[in-house]
Amino acid sequence: MISGMNLVAGKWEDNSNAEIFQTRNPNTDLLLPEEFQQSTTDQVNRSVSAASDSFEFFAHTSFKNRILFLKTIQEELLLAQSEITATYQQESALPEGRANGEFQRTLDQIQCFVELLEEGSFIDASIHTQGPDLRKMLYPIGPIVVFGASNFPLAFSTAGGDTISAFAAGCPVLVKAHPYHAGTSERVAVAINKAIEKCKLPSGIFSHLGGQSHSVGSQLVSHSLIKGVGFTGSFSGGKALYDLAQKREEPIPVFAEMGSINPIFILENKLKTDSNLAEGLAQSVILGTGQFCTNPGIIVVCDPSDSVDFAKEVSDAIEGAELPPMVHKNIQKQYDKQLRKINEGEQVDALFFAKSCKAAVGLVQASKFLTDSSLADEVFGPFTLVVKCKSNDEMLKVAASMEGQLTTTILGENSDQEVSKKLLSKLQSKVGRILFQGVPTGVAVTQPMQHGGPYPASTDSRFSSVGTDSIYRWLRPVAFQDCPNELLPDALKNENPLGLERKIDGRIISSAL
Amino acid sequence: MISGMNLVAGKWEDNSNAEIFQTRNPNTDLLLPEEFQQSTTDQVNRSVSAASDSFEFFAHTSFKNRILFLKTIQEELLLAQSEITATYQQESALPEGRANGEFQRTLDQIQCFVELLEEGSFIDASIHTQGPDLRKMLYPIGPIVVFGASNFPLAFSTAGGDTISAFAAGCPVLVKAHPYHAGTSERVAVAINKAIEKCKLPSGIFSHLGGQSHSVGSQLVSHSLIKGVGFTGSFSGGKALYDLAQKREEPIPVFAEMGSINPIFILENKLKTDSNLAEGLAQSVILGTGQFCTNPGIIVVCDPSDSVDFAKEVSDAIEGAELPPMVHKNIQKQYDKQLRKINEGEQVDALFFAKSCKAAVGLVQASKFLTDSSLADEVFGPFTLVVKCKSNDEMLKVAASMEGQLTTTILGENSDQEVSKKLLSKLQSKVGRILFQGVPTGVAVTQPMQHGGPYPASTDSRFSSVGTDSIYRWLRPVAFQDCPNELLPDALKNENPLGLERKIDGRIISSAL
Repeated sequence: MISGMNLVAGKWEDNSNAEIFQTRNPNTDLLLPEEFQQSTTDQVNRSVSAASDSFEFFAHTSFKNRILFLKTIQEELLLAQSEITATYQQESALPEGRANGEFQRTLDQIQCFVELLEEGSFIDASIHTQGPDLRKMLYPIGPIVVFGASNFPLAFSTAGGDTISAFAAGCPVLVKAHPYHAGTSERVAVAINKAIEKCKLPSGIFSHLGGQSHSVGSQLVSHSLIKGVGFTGSFSGGKALYDLAQKREEPIPVFAEMGSINPIFILENKLKTDSNLAEGLAQSVILGTGQFCTNPGIIVVCDPSDSVDFAKEVSDAIEGAELPPMVHKNIQKQYDKQLRKINEGEQVDALFFAKSCKAAVGLVQASKFLTDSSLADEVFGPFTLVVKCKSNDEMLKVAASMEGQLTTTILGENSDQEVSKKLLSKLQSKVGRILFQGVPTGVAVTQPMQHGGPYPASTDSRFSSVGTDSIYRWLRPVAFQDCPNELLPDALKNENPLGLERKIDGRIISSAL
Repeated sequence: MISGMNLVAGKWEDNSNAEIFQTRNPNTDLLLPEEFQQSTTDQVNRSVSAASDSFEFFAHTSFKNRILFLKTIQEELLLAQSEITATYQQESALPEGRANGEFQRTLDQIQCFVELLEEGSFIDASIHTQGPDLRKMLYPIGPIVVFGASNFPLAFSTAGGDTISAFAAGCPVLVKAHPYHAGTSERVAVAINKAIEKCKLPSGIFSHLGGQSHSVGSQLVSHSLIKGVGFTGSFSGGKALYDLAQKREEPIPVFAEMGSINPIFILENKLKTDSNLAEGLAQSVILGTGQFCTNPGIIVVCDPSDSVDFAKEVSDAIEGAELPPMVHKNIQKQYDKQLRKINEGEQVDALFFAKSCKAAVGLVQASKFLTDSSLADEVFGPFTLVVKCKSNDEMLKVAASMEGQLTTTILGENSDQEVSKKLLSKLQSKVGRILFQGVPTGVAVTQPMQHGGPYPASTDSRFSSVGTDSIYRWLRPVAFQDCPNELLPDALKNENPLGLERKIDGRIISSAL
């Protein structure tokens, strides 16, 4: 049963005066029956106050208790898996395989943070014994607002990486549910809230607030007791939240991952010799109906002899694919509109529309691409633009013209290595992750993953929103000078009761002091 | 010889049309003879372009070459020591001992970064071999603007921690010289520029621009090719730069350390038994004529029996001290004005003015302090306010009322430990560093130092502006996926040619892969 209510610090509140909204099944284009209540200003304020009141306690919970909490969330999610994935499919039109895959990914992400807490060294304990006794470790920053993402109703939403990394850090979380999948979000929130009850944690550490209007999110981000924001979505949405947060009396960090065109560079010899390229890239372009932040939006090929019709090859490889609709008609409309503009504006030299689905592949000469910066705008959906370069120099110019990106991919043979080096040197200051094989879609949840890049790909390139290092978004250092051992947090005590790897006078040591 | 010219990417430029400004000797209140040229918009733009052009090269310089560069800066500073410290004393009125002490501190800070680069692990190399081969390390963010600080003409200025940490990170630096000590700044810039020439580094990695007007700093921070800002100074100055940087088309990080009242909490039994407290705190209050960011501006005492006249004790301990004037008459005027306001407004219960110098000590009951938030505003200078609490609960209320601070100090006996614990729990979310002995002035330059705190103490509590960890302000992670070994940066190569401690599949290992 989906109640449509808001969860305010442990209590599902029924408000008969609330504004109502519904979600829509993109397959049928029909509204789903459940009615969702938009949360009120009062509900927002009470949720934030409860989060703030619970902060001091939650910040001091042991790693052991946080592990128990995360594991209980996993258990509660598993118990509700069939309901969650059923609602997920209704609200997103994403197929069953994807639903189960994303569900599993969500559990796996939680597991990564369980293991991070078990190991514990992420807390960055360091001790300096010469001069004043100085010991430093990380401490949570306070209550966090997390916005559900439209394109990942599970893995980047209510119990996604933002929420779980904040919980692992010791920060209370307020989720603003994405209105396109409010039901999925509620089902997940139920699981989280049950875990809080079972673990006897303060109810204030989690609230789940809904609404179609931007005002709910704005109120949350503007609230003086909120200390950080996590967001994955469009540039306009992320930038609006960022600006709001900077205009507060106390500015706060906003980690907005706002997308990217993830340029692929195919060097001359690679283009000539690798006959599987088009097929691999075509699959990446249409994966999830193109709704991945790491979707390859631009494929830059070096083809001085004009020998390869790469755009046609990619287009041919897509032909025959049947794609589900995009997760919401608004997103579909925006995609259709952008393609129409490119087509009607004759901005490109050719535009191949697939017959079997809504995917499309464009082709443009690099000389033209370099004079029309709007061609580097993201087209969110199953579209890619092949940019054809006549020389390595032209390719380097295209690389130099790029804005900040989540990823870039350099595909070359050994014989292309001189150019690869030059490209790498130029692109390193523009991206978060550089691939040399494969495709950028599929973001491994591991410690060295970097998901985030220089602006406008994200608002803070120094942090990742995927992988265990994403926990550092919610932590800041606190130093203790000449503190009695008994007052120190466990992570800094002489006897090292947590068995952490600590930096002691510059050396990593896991024994007691 | 002080030329008064601006250094634009290696060239000292004489501009006969420049607006002119002079520095002033605070001891004599007379203008010093040297005429300084305000830099022009054209000079700003050419400096930034040169910095940006040099970035790709400088970002890829080896640790070895950066070490050589930093050591050469040390050498050049040493060669010019007598001229630098002579000008320093003329421009700041700070005595010879302080001049030489701060000079040595500046050299020592550089040495810390030399050793950091020698060891190398700060680059945070991590490798994940399961699944896609993913390797991550830190990479410099780009050209940085550093603002000289009025209160530390050497250690927090031209070759201070901001500049040196940025150089160590591989970032070009543009220094906006502080107009109060433009001559000191020029002499130091000469040394840095000579080091660049000797090390055959690109001249664009350093420019030194002067001006009394805010416009030079604004132009620098607003320039689209600048990627970060370091500042130490007033709240109004730091906040203005922060806002400017957030309004750019591409917002950039601003690390502004904006000061703090560094509250000292003296618990009941400590107050009764430690007869040396007043003397120690008095010395901290007047150190450097009170011009330290970590100056103890508030001393909160728990004195239920009303037995200790602590404000009088501190005031008595100050009496007899002779202090040099503050570093500039504008700062002195502001200090005098704030004291006058407190005095005339009868905001405090008593105000003791020292006869021998401009220091002052106020006394106020906690109940009154809690109803007048302006009493928690920083009074930059040799002033402290004793806040008298009737109970531990009242002291906890005072702690709860505090805004973000650089430091706080909890002074208690073993018998005070219950209260210490409660205070600690409350204060941990409000400060960067917590002391349990001594005084907050004197910031050790070590790795676990945290100099920076929650807003409004600084604009980004996640970073420190003192100690080797301050380098992380200028670095961001870049991940390499399936990168051929020969294209990887040395820090990530299989053979570990730099001999770094690296995180490999979650374990710290310093051998080859």
